[in-house]
Amino acid sequence: MKFVIIGGDAAGMSAASRAKRQQPDMQVTVLEQSQHVSYSACGMPYNIADPQRSMDDLVVRGVEVFQDKQGIDVRLGHRAEKIDRATGLVSGTNANGDDFSINYDRLLIATGASPVVPDLPGFRNPGVLALKSLDDGHRIKEYIRTKPVAKTTIIGMGYIALEMCEALVNRGIRVDMVKPRPRLLPWLDGQLAERVQAQLLAKGVNLFAGHAVERIENSGKHLITACRDLALVSDMVLVAAGIRPNSQIAAAADLDLGPHQAIAVGRDLRTTDTNIFAAGDCADAFHVVTGQRVWIPLALRANRAGWAAADNICGKAVQLPGVAGTAVFKVFDLQVAKTGLSADEAAAAGFTPQSATIVTRSRAHAHPGSASIQVHMLADQESGRLLGAQMVGKEGVAHRINAAAVALSAQMDVDQFLQCDLAYAPPFGPVWDPLLTCANQLLKKLSALR
Amino acid sequence: MKFVIIGGDAAGMSAASRAKRQQPDMQVTVLEQSQHVSYSACGMPYNIADPQRSMDDLVVRGVEVFQDKQGIDVRLGHRAEKIDRATGLVSGTNANGDDFSINYDRLLIATGASPVVPDLPGFRNPGVLALKSLDDGHRIKEYIRTKPVAKTTIIGMGYIALEMCEALVNRGIRVDMVKPRPRLLPWLDGQLAERVQAQLLAKGVNLFAGHAVERIENSGKHLITACRDLALVSDMVLVAAGIRPNSQIAAAADLDLGPHQAIAVGRDLRTTDTNIFAAGDCADAFHVVTGQRVWIPLALRANRAGWAAADNICGKAVQLPGVAGTAVFKVFDLQVAKTGLSADEAAAAGFTPQSATIVTRSRAHAHPGSASIQVHMLADQESGRLLGAQMVGKEGVAHRINAAAVALSAQMDVDQFLQCDLAYAPPFGPVWDPLLTCANQLLKKLSALR
Repeated sequence: MKFVIIGGDAAGMSAASRAKRQQPDMQVTVLEQSQHVSYSACGMPYNIADPQRSMDDLVVRGVEVFQDKQGIDVRLGHRAEKIDRATGLVSGTNANGDDFSINYDRLLIATGASPVVPDLPGFRNPGVLALKSLDDGHRIKEYIRTKPVAKTTIIGMGYIALEMCEALVNRGIRVDMVKPRPRLLPWLDGQLAERVQAQLLAKGVNLFAGHAVERIENSGKHLITACRDLALVSDMVLVAAGIRPNSQIAAAADLDLGPHQAIAVGRDLRTTDTNIFAAGDCADAFHVVTGQRVWIPLALRANRAGWAAADNICGKAVQLPGVAGTAVFKVFDLQVAKTGLSADEAAAAGFTPQSATIVTRSRAHAHPGSASIQVHMLADQESGRLLGAQMVGKEGVAHRINAAAVALSAQMDVDQFLQCDLAYAPPFGPVWDPLLTCANQLLKKLSALR
Repeated sequence: MKFVIIGGDAAGMSAASRAKRQQPDMQVTVLEQSQHVSYSACGMPYNIADPQRSMDDLVVRGVEVFQDKQGIDVRLGHRAEKIDRATGLVSGTNANGDDFSINYDRLLIATGASPVVPDLPGFRNPGVLALKSLDDGHRIKEYIRTKPVAKTTIIGMGYIALEMCEALVNRGIRVDMVKPRPRLLPWLDGQLAERVQAQLLAKGVNLFAGHAVERIENSGKHLITACRDLALVSDMVLVAAGIRPNSQIAAAADLDLGPHQAIAVGRDLRTTDTNIFAAGDCADAFHVVTGQRVWIPLALRANRAGWAAADNICGKAVQLPGVAGTAVFKVFDLQVAKTGLSADEAAAAGFTPQSATIVTRSRAHAHPGSASIQVHMLADQESGRLLGAQMVGKEGVAHRINAAAVALSAQMDVDQFLQCDLAYAPPFGPVWDPLLTCANQLLKKLSALR
């Protein structure tokens, strides 16, 4: 069988390796437009933060490992441009500018996502950069190394923007952040978002929320990011205003698209063409809480979907239950984590969201080194079902959120979650885990309203 | 209604406060034999480690808070000795040596547990100490402050023994540890236990496993802990050879006992007398995995059982689903955590345990500061059900274990757990959380044997 994969990042290479392990005689070909496969994209901000580290240490496995050891035909510099479903043919252009085409029995589209770069004046100025591919990472790091970058304007305030903000500040670069909508991290409970904001301000970061960028001007000496009533002067502009799925090739082949124009796939990762699968940041998923289609591009899902697509192609039927949107990021001394729905998402999905927000300590009573942890938890007033959880704190947040994520997968009610037997020792938390304390408050609210 | 509670520690005071909050006109009396209520017992090793800290900073709430603010009648120095079920009377002796008696409509036995001190020669020598109550903590700290303690022998190698070992080493005291059975932490997978052992040895701790202590001799200058073929010389001996439930008063009143002579209670915390409840370290519980009665004395359960007993006494029917035995402790630079069954426990409960053990990293590929994490996971070969998980590592263990604990509560299979959407960011773990990587290995083993 000829298995062709478009895109050699997390989903694509996971699928290639998995398929080859299961069926060593399968002909597996990966078409990758860049010169890299299998690198840790999420590690780029941390790499950029450290001038001593080589960008290439993010490459998990070199292409030769996939080719020589695993027998995967990896074609770098191959940009797939068209899928002919009738004949089972993918065609495109390679790095030399030559056309190529390849037949498939099964196709996996794993084209990932791209940064949204607004179509506004000045965004092609030198020094206006975005971060997605390893080449982007190289470009940014090289720019900082070779140019006198004392100040950067970051357009966007999502988690990549915030991770890059930390990276740049840690390199001694001052940062202004600007975005059109008024609230920092609008999916995060207000109290929790305020703490993140306070952390950014304490690190000298200027936040300009509620300002839509209209253009970037090049003064010769500086870049000027201009809004209607604001002009931010800097030496570099980082565009981190969100990403969009690379679904154009699928749309052109008349495959159905889902939310945010991501490629619509079933729980088996199959598109509307039975021979074509999609996985990773280009594809959608079902939400474990709502059951609805969502587009939540995250690394674990990409890897998992790559595996599942390969399993299904190899004849082992696998259905993925879906995503909870569990995520964590670090911003300076804070860990910020979430799983499940925000209040707005819960209401939109037809739930009657009730929430509790608490502040507690990261360690036991009187234990030295304790820091405050904020927990926000959301449940459905009607059913008592747990819908989501969010946390902010200096320690004990990143892994703690997983307990709530598992509870969402198990479709637990708040009172079931409250009865879970969680770990306790003084250096690691209070007797009642912060998640349990919040669940207890939430249960009281739910009960009071019944 | 007259609600009498024997024991003013975690379970007892939780129950007292909860009952009073729900029914402010209830007459709630707590009989506490010591002079302290509501202190963080688990915090004592960490307090002892720090000569600057006062032992009293472990007191969470002073007795006056319970008495004056909450209207709970707390009788310190009151040792309950007998329950007369026919007349509903508890009698005993107070600190002045006077007899007392008190009538109850509902009684809660929350007498906790006591260290097992072997009935062997020399265990009453000065300098032979055990740690359970706050008075014990004071005594140990005072002994170290006033005597020239250069070396301590710890009898026992459980988690309290290990926490005390760390505390003493951190105060510059050399430690020998001795116990009769041959394996350190026998409930922990062998590879994980080896890492804990290596950590102890690296800190200069001598471990003598497989040596039963026969007596302690006092040479005048030193204490000599003598086994058949071993004599350990020290300035202090700490007895941490396990604890046993304080169930004598219940047994004498003909209440049923469960495993390890703990007081047998239903899911509603009721003993075999409908008017008498038991909660905390003196009582048993049902295991969420096996459904069987177990005695796993831990702080969260004590607090939770105190609440549930009060709820049931106040007429709000509550059934606790049970315990998973989730626990974590710190030993020097390591975090050690477990939830659910060990292989031996699983086999004893009638499962066919299959396990996987992996070593992975605590942070993403190439992320600086990464340390190794070992994960051991256990499932039933027949049903695929997750039975337990264990972890050892320098970071990312203490809270991560909770994800597995929730999965046990939800009675998940390994493949369901493997599909949970856990958090990822490079500073906090690999894309596939260590628990998921281990679940994947375990699932492969289960599948291979089907």
